Amino acid sequence: MTKEQALEKLKSYEMTSFAISHASGLIYWDAVTYAPKGSAEVRPNTMGELSRMGYELTTSPETTEMLETLMAVKDELDPVTARDVSELYRDYERTKKIPKDEFTAYQMLLSQSESVWHEAKETNNFEMFEPYLQKVFDTQKKFAGYYDSTKNPYDVCLDIYERGLTREKCDEFFSELRSGIVPLIHKISKAKQICDAPLKKCYPLEEQRKLADFIIDRMAIDRKYFNIAETEHPFTTNFSKKDVRVTTHYYENNILSGIYSNMHEGGHALYELHTGENLMYTSLAGGASMAIHESQSRFYENILGRCREFTDILLEEFKRRFPDNFNGISSEEFYKMVNVAVPSLIRTEADELTYCLHIMIRYEIEKMMFDGKITAKEIPAVWNRLYKEYLGVDVPDDKHGALQDSHWAGGLVGYFPSYAIGSAYGAQYLMEMNKDFDVKKAVSDNQISKINDWFEEKIWRFGMMKDPVDVFEDVCGKFKPQCYIDYLTKKFSEIYDL
Amino acid sequence: MTKEQALEKLKSYEMTSFAISHASGLIYWDAVTYAPKGSAEVRPNTMGELSRMGYELTTSPETTEMLETLMAVKDELDPVTARDVSELYRDYERTKKIPKDEFTAYQMLLSQSESVWHEAKETNNFEMFEPYLQKVFDTQKKFAGYYDSTKNPYDVCLDIYERGLTREKCDEFFSELRSGIVPLIHKISKAKQICDAPLKKCYPLEEQRKLADFIIDRMAIDRKYFNIAETEHPFTTNFSKKDVRVTTHYYENNILSGIYSNMHEGGHALYELHTGENLMYTSLAGGASMAIHESQSRFYENILGRCREFTDILLEEFKRRFPDNFNGISSEEFYKMVNVAVPSLIRTEADELTYCLHIMIRYEIEKMMFDGKITAKEIPAVWNRLYKEYLGVDVPDDKHGALQDSHWAGGLVGYFPSYAIGSAYGAQYLMEMNKDFDVKKAVSDNQISKINDWFEEKIWRFGMMKDPVDVFEDVCGKFKPQCYIDYLTKKFSEIYDL
Repeated sequence: MTKEQALEKLKSYEMTSFAISHASGLIYWDAVTYAPKGSAEVRPNTMGELSRMGYELTTSPETTEMLETLMAVKDELDPVTARDVSELYRDYERTKKIPKDEFTAYQMLLSQSESVWHEAKETNNFEMFEPYLQKVFDTQKKFAGYYDSTKNPYDVCLDIYERGLTREKCDEFFSELRSGIVPLIHKISKAKQICDAPLKKCYPLEEQRKLADFIIDRMAIDRKYFNIAETEHPFTTNFSKKDVRVTTHYYENNILSGIYSNMHEGGHALYELHTGENLMYTSLAGGASMAIHESQSRFYENILGRCREFTDILLEEFKRRFPDNFNGISSEEFYKMVNVAVPSLIRTEADELTYCLHIMIRYEIEKMMFDGKITAKEIPAVWNRLYKEYLGVDVPDDKHGALQDSHWAGGLVGYFPSYAIGSAYGAQYLMEMNKDFDVKKAVSDNQISKINDWFEEKIWRFGMMKDPVDVFEDVCGKFKPQCYIDYLTKKFSEIYDL
Repeated sequence: MTKEQALEKLKSYEMTSFAISHASGLIYWDAVTYAPKGSAEVRPNTMGELSRMGYELTTSPETTEMLETLMAVKDELDPVTARDVSELYRDYERTKKIPKDEFTAYQMLLSQSESVWHEAKETNNFEMFEPYLQKVFDTQKKFAGYYDSTKNPYDVCLDIYERGLTREKCDEFFSELRSGIVPLIHKISKAKQICDAPLKKCYPLEEQRKLADFIIDRMAIDRKYFNIAETEHPFTTNFSKKDVRVTTHYYENNILSGIYSNMHEGGHALYELHTGENLMYTSLAGGASMAIHESQSRFYENILGRCREFTDILLEEFKRRFPDNFNGISSEEFYKMVNVAVPSLIRTEADELTYCLHIMIRYEIEKMMFDGKITAKEIPAVWNRLYKEYLGVDVPDDKHGALQDSHWAGGLVGYFPSYAIGSAYGAQYLMEMNKDFDVKKAVSDNQISKINDWFEEKIWRFGMMKDPVDVFEDVCGKFKPQCYIDYLTKKFSEIYDL
């Protein structure tokens, strides 16, 4: 195969690969949004077939030859193609280590596991989900061994979501974070508590849906390529930068939940919508890593969405829509309400301060599962014990405990630390951004697009052109968790008059 | 390849084929329901790739060998497998006649054409759609030549939707139908007209959506495997008998439109939901043909949905929901309102009597296009002329004229006659059904499931096990269009006191 032939082949390879991903991505999205329930009886077959096609495409002799041909002349390729080929080769080397039948069977398992989890959560029936959960962990561990038997299997999993991340680094980061956050939480628990009763009144879902439009407009998200659906567990998916979809969940008695869920997923969506047009259809399209992704979503949700300038904008809107509940409430009162920091049960509903403790609990459980210290059956008990230990809360049932998140059902093991790392990155972005312009003023002036432009310039447009660590360090220099601790300490000391 | 190997291969072939159809079917459904608009920029690529995969699967040497091996031992196979193999072989022989690039390019064209049609209809811009429409017809004609160059190309197209159908048979059928219907329409135009003003009042979409639930319940459709979405043009799609979806369109000032659209699509859905479980994943899953399909949908929509016993049920519901508009209206008045027969502009909104004239217009235009008598550019003028000639109505614009249907945009050329044939079949079903039980009583007693059971027993469960003509004749004997004319004459003579 000549270089030219290989380049031609690369194009057709990527288009096929794109089509398979588009199809399976949509089938997943459909499953959790609009598909009739009974369709779950059939879906695993399709998902299994599509993953088999993907596997065969990736590992075919033709692809091998194409990748090897191009790897040999990597220095002659333009930067995008060179990086693209390297990434594809990396994926190829990884994929071919897994026997095809196991690869396909796992995709079918995940498709089943997702729908079982859904029903298990609905009916608060952990037992039903347990065998699937065990199999997901077992398979992940087995695959980690295939990928790299010289490494600790959990390190291999962490590396999938955040290249270069290890449990050693995680342990260190979480320990630093914990020692900064926990004393603060203790102090707050003894301070005067904030009443957020107006936020917990009943807000009809129809009204909340209209608020979503308000948020999309404020965030300057382009609806031409974007929409919102409703699911049990909110998430963002992108079939390409021309088709990015978020999902959300509204609760009648918690108006902030839907708003901040939309801002969080909106952050993910903005990132995907603004990755480089030149990367479309390549393996470099999409965000650099899950931590970089969460660094965007958590930034929009919290650092931006829960700053005083934004809560002022929100209050104005609330006063317009729900005058009976919010007239007479001051800017400061509302800001404090939105930032109530109280240990709680549900990760996605957690406040900015206690959030990372939820992550640490999941991280500890994943390690225990990988180390063979517990089995899936024991997860609820460990979960409940750790919630008591870390957050001081009693878990009433598995629906509000170990069944709350969809990640494990979907095979996302090793993903959770990304949320905490991403959250912490945000404080350093803010510092850097403030060197270029007055961030608070941009928010007040309804110029969030200024913030979008900054991220697009510094991060979004690169897609996966850089390794995630480089993405961050090129903007902020070395990662300093202390920055995030300082940010939290300052913010919450003011809010609680510590 | 041994017979056993071929049977094994058949299974995996069908699962792959199923997955590709599921994926492309869902991508189409998504495109017209929930996808963000801009996603149309990318979708044709995916659709092209999926169709290429399907083509390569169907025409691969492995598939060829498998099919030839099994065709040689057809007599030794069980009836389902034998028929399955014959159908697959038929499809294989047909598909391989089309060059791969042309096959794929056509699927990409259709995907583009669909979204262009959508925008063209929205903006009443036929010019925008015209080049796509011309290309669709050109390609259909060209493919017809590939399939069978010895036949008239339009006959080849008709045969795709209704095996064995020819323009000769169509001409004969339409001529008989026209000579029965047109004098009736003339008489009605001179009779005392019926006022249906209460049906044209404003009914909020939210209320109409609730009525859909009422209809689904009455029709005894199993929601576990079924749902309704909203689109510009209503249709039914099924990814399998475990996942059947209809779409509908509600108009604020026409409450019957959504109801009968749901009954029509509900008829399609019932058919698909009740095809034999043993046919799943084979080429025999799904309805026998489009005429048989439309014979079900049109039966539920009209023969059942617009009979006095059902309009009584509907009136009761209307009185409950909209007492101001319907209290004081008698059963007879309401029945007449629902059956107002007046020549109109929109096929899907047409009454039972004038409906088939809409079909004939489309049929005439398709013939003209295939005979090279007109080009796409001339369609609107011909359309408008024929609407004046056949129905006596003036078409105000293309949105209400040549742009109203999505069929041509989706490549469904030769499909329209199915609606008329299917409609006519219904009268003979009714006669047969009445021999087994009192149909009117079943409707009055809210026992539509009795009708469903009858169809399941006689038609649905066979899927594509039989040729469409046999499906009909096994139940009703020879097709007699006069039966349908008699049914219409009796019904509308009573309604209009002729």
